[in-house]
Amino acid sequence: MSACGTSSPIRRWTALLRQFHPDIELTLGQMPQATAGPICDAAIEALRQGKTHYPPAAGIDPLRQALAKWEQQRRGWPVVPEQIIVTNGAQEALALCCLGLLKSGEEVLVQDPCYPGYLSALKTASALAVVCPQSADFQPDCEAMQRRIQPHTRALILNVPANPTGQMIEPRRLFRIGQLAWRHDLFLIVDVVYEELSQRESALAVLRPFRDRLILINSFSKPWAMTGWRVGWLCGDVSVIKRLVPVHQALVSGVCSFAQYGALAALRQDPEPLREQIADNVRVMTSALTCCGLRCPEVQGGFYLFPDIRRCMADDRQFALQLVQKQGVAVLPGSLFGQRGAGHVRLSLCGQRAQVEQAAERIVRFVTSAAEKPAVQTTPPADSR
Amino acid sequence: MSACGTSSPIRRWTALLRQFHPDIELTLGQMPQATAGPICDAAIEALRQGKTHYPPAAGIDPLRQALAKWEQQRRGWPVVPEQIIVTNGAQEALALCCLGLLKSGEEVLVQDPCYPGYLSALKTASALAVVCPQSADFQPDCEAMQRRIQPHTRALILNVPANPTGQMIEPRRLFRIGQLAWRHDLFLIVDVVYEELSQRESALAVLRPFRDRLILINSFSKPWAMTGWRVGWLCGDVSVIKRLVPVHQALVSGVCSFAQYGALAALRQDPEPLREQIADNVRVMTSALTCCGLRCPEVQGGFYLFPDIRRCMADDRQFALQLVQKQGVAVLPGSLFGQRGAGHVRLSLCGQRAQVEQAAERIVRFVTSAAEKPAVQTTPPADSR
Repeated sequence: MSACGTSSPIRRWTALLRQFHPDIELTLGQMPQATAGPICDAAIEALRQGKTHYPPAAGIDPLRQALAKWEQQRRGWPVVPEQIIVTNGAQEALALCCLGLLKSGEEVLVQDPCYPGYLSALKTASALAVVCPQSADFQPDCEAMQRRIQPHTRALILNVPANPTGQMIEPRRLFRIGQLAWRHDLFLIVDVVYEELSQRESALAVLRPFRDRLILINSFSKPWAMTGWRVGWLCGDVSVIKRLVPVHQALVSGVCSFAQYGALAALRQDPEPLREQIADNVRVMTSALTCCGLRCPEVQGGFYLFPDIRRCMADDRQFALQLVQKQGVAVLPGSLFGQRGAGHVRLSLCGQRAQVEQAAERIVRFVTSAAEKPAVQTTPPADSR
Repeated sequence: MSACGTSSPIRRWTALLRQFHPDIELTLGQMPQATAGPICDAAIEALRQGKTHYPPAAGIDPLRQALAKWEQQRRGWPVVPEQIIVTNGAQEALALCCLGLLKSGEEVLVQDPCYPGYLSALKTASALAVVCPQSADFQPDCEAMQRRIQPHTRALILNVPANPTGQMIEPRRLFRIGQLAWRHDLFLIVDVVYEELSQRESALAVLRPFRDRLILINSFSKPWAMTGWRVGWLCGDVSVIKRLVPVHQALVSGVCSFAQYGALAALRQDPEPLREQIADNVRVMTSALTCCGLRCPEVQGGFYLFPDIRRCMADDRQFALQLVQKQGVAVLPGSLFGQRGAGHVRLSLCGQRAQVEQAAERIVRFVTSAAEKPAVQTTPPADSR
């Protein structure tokens, strides 16, 4: 039975902060713009052509072929269509791995901080998340990971680049994690949904020797502004995919057929303009926050900035609550992502430049005032993470 | 861990029979026609309006409202939008119930014969299916059900009208099952995906006193020819829905936003023409098969005819294999749906009248020849259910 009796902490806090009517929201990982015309047109064309029948469980052939080619280009090793399952977004891909590969009570190493969706996916399979605290600069701690491996540890989950920290894993460290997975026969589940929005190349190529343990989780949501389409994919060894397809079929039967044709068209669109917009936003915000004394880890990929706010205020929940009340800017407390996220906040910077500039101004004003006088405590909600 | 290491027996046998290149397929439960124009137009309009962002996890508000109203009209008791979750088809709704309500090892009563998707959904949650053989006229056997209830039995699954048998459950029997569920505190999961394509009214109203245990599983797939859209829904008590929404979010996050707008438009389309087409097909096939001595249970709902073929041949798999080879007509062996389905075949009659007429002719010829000479045994596939 799923023990996940509460909804996503991200959505819960977004709802909570909305009660204060913020005019700037930097909470959700979602572009404000609609999906680009050519992608919508492809889905519309599929609808007009009557592509409204059951799709094959693992995805329509042309999309699996295109994704295999796409993965092969990025990874540098051969990938065939039989290694792909088209999923109902990255979340289904995660849940599918958990339900298809883990027994109740088996353990999976997750990073602290990490995206809370990993924990809810693990709970659907009654698998246990074993939290591995990251280093101060938000890199996985290989020793800490190794110490936590038990006979019933089955997998580890990484996020490259990472939500909420924006960090890539250093190549040598990633290689060591690959070795760990290989040596202990663990599945190496790597969520790469922000990879296409990276400022630098991921080091995933170092995992080549261990690629039969590797399961890549990806999605059309972020690079192509397709969050509402619910199309993602999973790429793994053929033996793993063979195990997972029947489970995918039992969970959802398949993914909306004409949405898959839209996704196919997305692969022909270069997300470069979005990458530039994000880089710009990140520069603006980082420079503003750094000026007023908040340490900002360099954003190496994705669109989240994860500043350390402890020079201004000890408690990140207080920071988020007071910021929304005083300046109308909604940001997420870092502690929603794990204990190691405490003292930080996550700013989603995938929106328009003008809004980010205004948000930066207001956060600077807030930090400046907070530094002058001790803040009044606001009662935080009881249902935190 | 999901133990479902094999894909759906329906899809597996459909693939097997296709190797003989049938020119008439009566296997899958899918209309040949594309989804109607007004439904596609609504999805296209939503796409053009930029409805491409994350939908609320439980579904877009207008669809939940419309479905609550729809359920209230059909059930005759009050239903509010908070009782609805929009799902990735009926299959996700089933898996969601299993993963959200059952612990590993808990038991659920299922009918024999039944739709095999129930078994695969139960396996995702490592729950156990306890098979209850139906009577000779394919009605649930209340005594058999009662005898199988254990302290760790948590739910029972019914299908009204039933796939593959086409039978409705008699009102008094349904009431007794409701009492059973109530007395033993079981969830009463009722799959009603063929309800809109019924020749007579379902007796679900008798379950009114037990409706807080009732979970209705429904889908846009069949009545509106929307199998590829992957939109279904689940209607239950508010307390159940509150438990299930976070699990639904952990499994799929939500359902394709613009597909939901299409579904909303579907509710304004009357499936009456489809009902007539099916009734016509059923009359043609029933009369042909009855003439050549095969007993056909009256189709009370849905579009499957489930004739008893034992007067022609003992083994339903042999029947299906030889029919496809000799007459190019693909039908599914009844034993795919359970032991009590043995000696029957399932004919899906949602296609065009002319095709059904031709299929009827060929089956009559096949039955006539088979009656004359003993059939040569063909080796059935090893991976039968």
